[in-house]
Amino acid sequence: MPIVVRLNGAEGGVGLVEPRTAHFDQPFALQCQETLRRFDLVYETYGELNENRDNAVLICHALSGDHHAAGFHSPDDAKPGWWDTCIGPGKPIDTTKFHVVALNNLGGCNGSTGPRTTDPKTGEAYGERFPTVTVKDWVKSQAMLADALGIERFAAVVGGSLGGMQALQWAIDYPDRVRHAIAIAAAAKLSAQNIAFNEIARQAIQSDPDFREGRYGQADAIPRKGLMLARMVGHVTYLSDDSMGDRFGRELKSGDIGSAQDVQFQVESYLHYQGTSFSERFDANTYLLMTRALDYFDPALEFDGDLVRAFAETQAKFLVLSFTSDWRFSPARSNEIVDALIEARKDVVSATIDAPHGHDSFLLHNERYFEVLGGYLDAVAQGADSPS
Amino acid sequence: MPIVVRLNGAEGGVGLVEPRTAHFDQPFALQCQETLRRFDLVYETYGELNENRDNAVLICHALSGDHHAAGFHSPDDAKPGWWDTCIGPGKPIDTTKFHVVALNNLGGCNGSTGPRTTDPKTGEAYGERFPTVTVKDWVKSQAMLADALGIERFAAVVGGSLGGMQALQWAIDYPDRVRHAIAIAAAAKLSAQNIAFNEIARQAIQSDPDFREGRYGQADAIPRKGLMLARMVGHVTYLSDDSMGDRFGRELKSGDIGSAQDVQFQVESYLHYQGTSFSERFDANTYLLMTRALDYFDPALEFDGDLVRAFAETQAKFLVLSFTSDWRFSPARSNEIVDALIEARKDVVSATIDAPHGHDSFLLHNERYFEVLGGYLDAVAQGADSPS
Repeated sequence: MPIVVRLNGAEGGVGLVEPRTAHFDQPFALQCQETLRRFDLVYETYGELNENRDNAVLICHALSGDHHAAGFHSPDDAKPGWWDTCIGPGKPIDTTKFHVVALNNLGGCNGSTGPRTTDPKTGEAYGERFPTVTVKDWVKSQAMLADALGIERFAAVVGGSLGGMQALQWAIDYPDRVRHAIAIAAAAKLSAQNIAFNEIARQAIQSDPDFREGRYGQADAIPRKGLMLARMVGHVTYLSDDSMGDRFGRELKSGDIGSAQDVQFQVESYLHYQGTSFSERFDANTYLLMTRALDYFDPALEFDGDLVRAFAETQAKFLVLSFTSDWRFSPARSNEIVDALIEARKDVVSATIDAPHGHDSFLLHNERYFEVLGGYLDAVAQGADSPS
Repeated sequence: MPIVVRLNGAEGGVGLVEPRTAHFDQPFALQCQETLRRFDLVYETYGELNENRDNAVLICHALSGDHHAAGFHSPDDAKPGWWDTCIGPGKPIDTTKFHVVALNNLGGCNGSTGPRTTDPKTGEAYGERFPTVTVKDWVKSQAMLADALGIERFAAVVGGSLGGMQALQWAIDYPDRVRHAIAIAAAAKLSAQNIAFNEIARQAIQSDPDFREGRYGQADAIPRKGLMLARMVGHVTYLSDDSMGDRFGRELKSGDIGSAQDVQFQVESYLHYQGTSFSERFDANTYLLMTRALDYFDPALEFDGDLVRAFAETQAKFLVLSFTSDWRFSPARSNEIVDALIEARKDVVSATIDAPHGHDSFLLHNERYFEVLGGYLDAVAQGADSPS
């Protein structure tokens, strides 16, 4: 039974949706050698699973995303799920054709087992003791969720940024369980600059005295300033210089020259607002875990650093998309993936979309982007072997 | 009498140098409407002032620079001044031809009047009460230093980054006192992204509880973590993605997957080291002041936002240089300066140097960069009107 309830006049969205929780009462061995005694994954689905059970699409989230990818939890919600632009009836990921599954990853802070969960071994929240999770761990847990939902093979695994890395790992680790891997604004591994930006964000959090070496939960504290700074770094680097310029220019809050400590420019107010609201909703230990999963992602490592060999056994077809103004995961990084796939003689469609909004472009409406993604998935829905 | 003492075997450097201090016992009105009752500027000179007193070159420093631009303060010094690559006998800024003057700007923390100085009104250090200083204020104070040194007109005013902005402001504010303005890796004003990165650095400092709203001096505290983070942001954004990749790649400190909180990659250790050493030597209130001077720089503002009009009365000839991999002050930003100068019918030579080290390229040795800069200054030394 689908959990989607259509709102009247919901303008083509998936309407009201309800998260569910899958319980896994079995040990889960992580790449870091630690084992979780049991775990939960919270997820949402949109659109109906067909009789052949072959129209499921898995949505993998990025750094700060979760299972709430589309629709509303209540009619009063100010905002829909994080990828509502892309998921819904008539949208690129069309819920009239696909059964869409979105989950909160292991280590997350929105319902799946993570730092806020009680550790069965200690009876206290895991907090900073939650083990390091990797993209490979996530994909393994997602495969267990697919089993629980009776999905043997996904029509597509789709994600942007860190989500796209999960799509690639799926194709490598479960060759026969994914027909199409769609990696948007991703990379085969982070650059030193990427890692450095993540480290600045982590340091900001860890330097906040309210972080208390990760034990802020026990002290009823929240490292708000650290989370705010981390989000500011993310925000600035996920946007392009031009898009920030178009939006804020050099607008001063007042015409005069003020003190060095006070906010003077509109762009500063905006960043403060974004950072503060993030610090109210996101868990600091989860932020550290998610950025580490990004840093560690390097599927070629198991194949002596050879990405071509990493893709050798994949059976999926690939769609690889990037955006011209994205300087954190630039088109050049996507092309490294495409080149390796071609050398591995895999079926790959790729496009670089002319979009002004930097890395965040993958979340935003853009005609050509939606045409390419929607067109590809249309062909997937029709069961065509090589949609392009 | 020159203060330069040549070291034997100093390999073409200016040798041992000694800072001097110029005292200005007169009120200095700042753009922010506040007045300093008196002020000091600490400076160094390299090379001899000729009889005509027309071979002086002023070096303007960037965010974290100071008066110690070349040579050594003691034979035990591990490192020479910050622009020693460029300044010295036979170097692009050739001290056998020029009398080079380098100073620490007002608001600095290396000897010139700044937050660490005692406020004559209160008998206590200025600290966070030090008034906001602008590029225009700096240039005015530098002109007073030139008066004190008997330099009526500079052969050239030279600077990189924020230093280049001072060179432009010199040409605008003192048209008859600068023959050549040399702006390297600069911009006519900051973009929203530039301001945003500065604001992240400021927030990092201000969020550190040891900052104590700028009154850390009274409490014998230093906001070390905030300064460290600010420096890390600067470091990552002043380098290019490629140069970081070449230097660090994705080298792990150990092969295993470690905890989320610990340092795992070489690039992280490097940033921690750089950030920590910076936090030991730099003043937090000065850092806030310097970044604000950057944010506020916009010489066109006095001319209804028209940069062409801002340059209209300049008499200097201009050299404008930029570096291909510099994404914080990209060649496009230098071209805005060049375009305005051309439209204002000014004499301008410009070059974009193919260099891999991002914004930091202006500090580093690069054959073509040194050829262009040295060649231009050779012609300046020969008194040629239009060196190019």
